[in-house]
Amino acid sequence: MSHLRYLLRFMSPVMILTSVSMLPAFFISLYHGETDGAQAFALSIALLAVTGGLLLLLKPNSKKNMYAKEGFLVVGLAWILLSVIGGLPFFFSRSIPSFVDCLFESISGFTTTGASILTNVEGLPFGMLYWRSFTHWIGGMGVLVFLLAFSAPGGSRSVYLMRAESPGPSKGKLMPKLKDTAKILYAIYFALTFLQVLLLLAGGMPLFDSVCTAFGTAGTGGFGVKNTSIGYYDSAYIDGVVTVFMLLFGVNFSVYFLLLLRRFSECVTHEEVRAYFLIVAVAIAVIVIDLVATIPDTTIAHAFRLSSFQVASIITTTGFATTDFNLWPTLSQIVLVALMFIGACGGSTGGGIKVARTLIMFKSARGATKRMVHPGATQIVRMDGKLLDAETVDRVHVFFFIYCLILTASILLVSIDNVDFVTSVTSVVACLNNVGPGLGLVGPVGNYAALSDISKILLSLDMLIGRLEIFPILMVLSPSVWRNR
Amino acid sequence: MSHLRYLLRFMSPVMILTSVSMLPAFFISLYHGETDGAQAFALSIALLAVTGGLLLLLKPNSKKNMYAKEGFLVVGLAWILLSVIGGLPFFFSRSIPSFVDCLFESISGFTTTGASILTNVEGLPFGMLYWRSFTHWIGGMGVLVFLLAFSAPGGSRSVYLMRAESPGPSKGKLMPKLKDTAKILYAIYFALTFLQVLLLLAGGMPLFDSVCTAFGTAGTGGFGVKNTSIGYYDSAYIDGVVTVFMLLFGVNFSVYFLLLLRRFSECVTHEEVRAYFLIVAVAIAVIVIDLVATIPDTTIAHAFRLSSFQVASIITTTGFATTDFNLWPTLSQIVLVALMFIGACGGSTGGGIKVARTLIMFKSARGATKRMVHPGATQIVRMDGKLLDAETVDRVHVFFFIYCLILTASILLVSIDNVDFVTSVTSVVACLNNVGPGLGLVGPVGNYAALSDISKILLSLDMLIGRLEIFPILMVLSPSVWRNR
Repeated sequence: MSHLRYLLRFMSPVMILTSVSMLPAFFISLYHGETDGAQAFALSIALLAVTGGLLLLLKPNSKKNMYAKEGFLVVGLAWILLSVIGGLPFFFSRSIPSFVDCLFESISGFTTTGASILTNVEGLPFGMLYWRSFTHWIGGMGVLVFLLAFSAPGGSRSVYLMRAESPGPSKGKLMPKLKDTAKILYAIYFALTFLQVLLLLAGGMPLFDSVCTAFGTAGTGGFGVKNTSIGYYDSAYIDGVVTVFMLLFGVNFSVYFLLLLRRFSECVTHEEVRAYFLIVAVAIAVIVIDLVATIPDTTIAHAFRLSSFQVASIITTTGFATTDFNLWPTLSQIVLVALMFIGACGGSTGGGIKVARTLIMFKSARGATKRMVHPGATQIVRMDGKLLDAETVDRVHVFFFIYCLILTASILLVSIDNVDFVTSVTSVVACLNNVGPGLGLVGPVGNYAALSDISKILLSLDMLIGRLEIFPILMVLSPSVWRNR
Repeated sequence: MSHLRYLLRFMSPVMILTSVSMLPAFFISLYHGETDGAQAFALSIALLAVTGGLLLLLKPNSKKNMYAKEGFLVVGLAWILLSVIGGLPFFFSRSIPSFVDCLFESISGFTTTGASILTNVEGLPFGMLYWRSFTHWIGGMGVLVFLLAFSAPGGSRSVYLMRAESPGPSKGKLMPKLKDTAKILYAIYFALTFLQVLLLLAGGMPLFDSVCTAFGTAGTGGFGVKNTSIGYYDSAYIDGVVTVFMLLFGVNFSVYFLLLLRRFSECVTHEEVRAYFLIVAVAIAVIVIDLVATIPDTTIAHAFRLSSFQVASIITTTGFATTDFNLWPTLSQIVLVALMFIGACGGSTGGGIKVARTLIMFKSARGATKRMVHPGATQIVRMDGKLLDAETVDRVHVFFFIYCLILTASILLVSIDNVDFVTSVTSVVACLNNVGPGLGLVGPVGNYAALSDISKILLSLDMLIGRLEIFPILMVLSPSVWRNR
């Protein structure tokens, strides 16, 4: 039991933080005279503050050391808790009547997936729209990273929490103290978000829309405030700003840190970021050619605008859209689906397998092929000039296989709904990689409303698994982890 | 140049063997009065015998040792050669007018894929039908393994040739001498094929059909002699015989060897074979439930007959069909596609990733997950009680990643044809795994005729890559391998 108490103690700040972060949404509801919404937020805030406060009374077992296992468990449990409490305002206000739908929407928000069960986004009150987008912002950089940045020094436990919550194969410490690293990350995050809001306002986008869009971009989430997503504004300037910022939030944040330190040459030679921009450039070019060649009367300029936006949106796993790529030729669709798998850089707010992992597997494969020709050569995988140890490479391979297993199992289970093949497959691909829109029924102009409750719960789980990179959720769900104490 | 001469020297027996193995087809053509066919075979036989004989004049550089690299190159080149010369009779007789189509059909035969560009199989003369099916039989167990069994002892070079041509992650020697291993393998192969012919004859299938069907089953190929494949015979007995034999040819042949040695307990505990039958049983059960639940008026007995046949056909990567599973509910389709990836056992004639590799990756993943909970534990993967070394596990992971890369690249290239999403994806899945039929246009009642020549060549390459498990073809295509001498 002491184990459970120990874990529960960590849930207290999560609840209090969520409670506090609902305050702006509460005031927005009040401002717009949305009584149902304001009451729902007030109720949620009170409930979380009281419960969080009560949990605070549990004596922390300070002698207990935290190891990797506890780090995974705390992060896994915190995110499952977040998912439930984040959906409370939707449920209390009856904006989303079904509890499973509330859960789906909340998880989709925090995991920065952006998949929605809403058939009419514009029908949602302002307070709820704001909350939906804000979950992207806080979920993108990480809830526990946030707590770490603004709480008492946690010592060794911080390392494990940050490792379990931050995406990517190698979690570099930017500063000797993790607390400082977390603070710098959030400072960069906040500054970039603020800059995007200003640029969107300059393009004539209303303040509310600008803030929500920036939240969705920063977290690489994809929830918008309009039914036709960014396509609503029909502005090349806004498309451009969102495209650039999506790409920026998909970059490994350690590059921004290097920029701050004026270590420019390291930024330029950063292998993962170079590969990321190379993939983006090739994907945009292929789609431009495909669109111009296949769809009559498509100018190169227009094709570039559509292609660059959608490529940026999909590889960063944001999921905003300015067109229905369900209607694109097959090659362009396959390119987008391939980008969903690769995803953004490690150490960014984006999802997917990550460019760094893809790169490591690629290098490992090249090495293994060379060893077949020249046996006896030792296996060496370098990233940014540094040697990767065999354990890291091995973990990436294992990650990839488990990822494929979860993908296959999820597709099998979703297909029980007997929706078409493409929808079954891409709904899982889009959720596991935290993208949002897939193809078929769940395409950019579609939504997840048609799926059964069981599929929605399963896809919610996939979103959590994708955001936390498998292991935290796997451990929470594994009976042996709980038995072993 | 001595390098090239050395490699060419190995092509001589391949050509002579192909020449000899065309003789039955020649006589069948004569017997049925198919003059065009008989002339085509006569021309091919003469051409191959003369060219093969001339190559024999090249002095073998007997001092040269063969290493893994040369083994891969010889096998890769031999199979590319086979593909071209195997298609000559189709081309000379104009049974298949396009040269690319001849190549596709020939490669599909030797690699035991069974994908066809023919829209009307029954329109083909008997000689050609026989040759098509015979390529399955010889390709299944391996052309170089055949030469090894019935040629002079090759010493060390045999090891590398057999390793490069036989499927599966670990190539066990059954006998101290490889020549004996090859002989025993072919003896088992022949005996099982003969038994199947007898059982099919007993079910009233004509002799010609029985022999061709047995060839297609033994090689896990899937070319039939009727447009509606095995569905034509509309017999539960024949469906049953073919189902059982497909499953038998998908079993790791070392189990049959153990049976001959009366080491029964080792057969029963063989982990790969147990996993294989478990997957088959679960897949059949899931599809039976899905069919009965989804399609009105489906009896359990009928669903079982359809399900067991199609599951056996797909997991063994044979590709025979008794129904159009394009019309099945989505879950059943996804189960079949998942089986295409897994494939049959290593050391069988089937394709795919192989059950053994899946099992090794599964065990490695379980171990890695455990190490996260209990750090410090060493990585141990056991198969059949024996410890696998890290290099073997690593090679399986690398294989899987390169496999996924080739899959993705091929899907991207095939999708340029702008056929639908499902056809683009499953045509590659079906060819790379040597299955044959996919979904959509290339489904069990469809064919590959609609694809462009470029896609056909690409899919042909995928079939070769799948049959030889990537590396031999990769090496032949790699300029650095050729430069490095």
